Amino acid sequence: MNQVICTVDVVLLTIRQDALMTALIRREHAPHAGDLALPGGYIHADKDDSVYASAMRVITAKAGIVPPYLEQLGTFSGPGRDPRGWSVSIAHYALVPFEIIDQAKGSQVQLVPVDKLCALPFDHAQIVGMAVERLRNKSQYSSLPCFLAGESFTLPQLQRIYEVLMGETLNKVSFRRKITEMDMLEPVEGRFEAAGAHRPAQVYTLKPGSRQHLMLLQRGL
Amino acid sequence: MNQVICTVDVVLLTIRQDALMTALIRREHAPHAGDLALPGGYIHADKDDSVYASAMRVITAKAGIVPPYLEQLGTFSGPGRDPRGWSVSIAHYALVPFEIIDQAKGSQVQLVPVDKLCALPFDHAQIVGMAVERLRNKSQYSSLPCFLAGESFTLPQLQRIYEVLMGETLNKVSFRRKITEMDMLEPVEGRFEAAGAHRPAQVYTLKPGSRQHLMLLQRGL
Repeated sequence: MNQVICTVDVVLLTIRQDALMTALIRREHAPHAGDLALPGGYIHADKDDSVYASAMRVITAKAGIVPPYLEQLGTFSGPGRDPRGWSVSIAHYALVPFEIIDQAKGSQVQLVPVDKLCALPFDHAQIVGMAVERLRNKSQYSSLPCFLAGESFTLPQLQRIYEVLMGETLNKVSFRRKITEMDMLEPVEGRFEAAGAHRPAQVYTLKPGSRQHLMLLQRGL
Repeated sequence: MNQVICTVDVVLLTIRQDALMTALIRREHAPHAGDLALPGGYIHADKDDSVYASAMRVITAKAGIVPPYLEQLGTFSGPGRDPRGWSVSIAHYALVPFEIIDQAKGSQVQLVPVDKLCALPFDHAQIVGMAVERLRNKSQYSSLPCFLAGESFTLPQLQRIYEVLMGETLNKVSFRRKITEMDMLEPVEGRFEAAGAHRPAQVYTLKPGSRQHLMLLQRGL
């Protein structure tokens, strides 16, 4: 058996000013030292309980946060993707509300809109592309976008997040029917937010069960 | 960085006599020498172009076939799953018509019904469980079960495969409407098969495009 380099990379996604952004970090070491790249690193056999734990450790160390949602995306592998040798990156994506990234202490990340990425080292552009595609697909029939919405939010704010991800305007009545069908939200008693010329909007939060499992729609949005 | 053992395992699934079966192989080497386990092996950095190629090589070497469908399932990892050290198995599942396994030269596999598995070494039972769950979920809204059906088949034969996977009897009219919606089949000119007391059934094959991509249903079966 020849040596295989075994790493994790994480596509940390958030929404700022109605744009889907990914977190990049300037690389400290060769190869590609000084370039912006996905946060990633070796699996640490002496510290990590699993590949999932490796990804969580990397993102916590480099972005200073614990992401509310982290899922494995797939592997990227082969003899040519890393000059150090045959390598496999077990890629993940994480969803984080912008406020959490913004308030993180000691974060080294730079946010870049996913549709305006500069050239990235390795096959990182391809990894980001797959993460964005997975997120957009799952947004059509699940509660996944809620993990980008923060601790509490109004329905118009949540609808805007779905619209940013799906790249289209959604019908308000049908959006609310779908959200009701997923049964994932509960109102925060007595909390309303001003909403321009409209009457104040009820503030909601995720039901505890919806933080553990994705809620699914029978039919997409 | 500590050494990480990097392997692939493949859950090779087929249907024989209306039962979903998985292929097991008697292990030649320690740990667990002599036990039945999933076909698997190390990634060979000197031979394989990717993790996918590693999985394809393992299944071809051990089962003597090239599976028509092979997809990555997920990773199973940690310090405790393999006595040799911290290991990651990049698990895959493959779908193969029974005839292909049956006719393979030099195959070492034994087929065991997935619901009657003996105790398996490592976390192989868990890997089989995840593969079966993935296959059953995807069967509800895609053309995936066709890869278990062989080169050509009648609609009653295909319906039976879906029924075995989903564990329920399907309505014939609605099944055929869904199959038509996926637009994945073409009739084989002039070929019919006797079907008991019924009139002979038209024989179909997958359209070329349906061999490359899964066809999806808007709404499940």
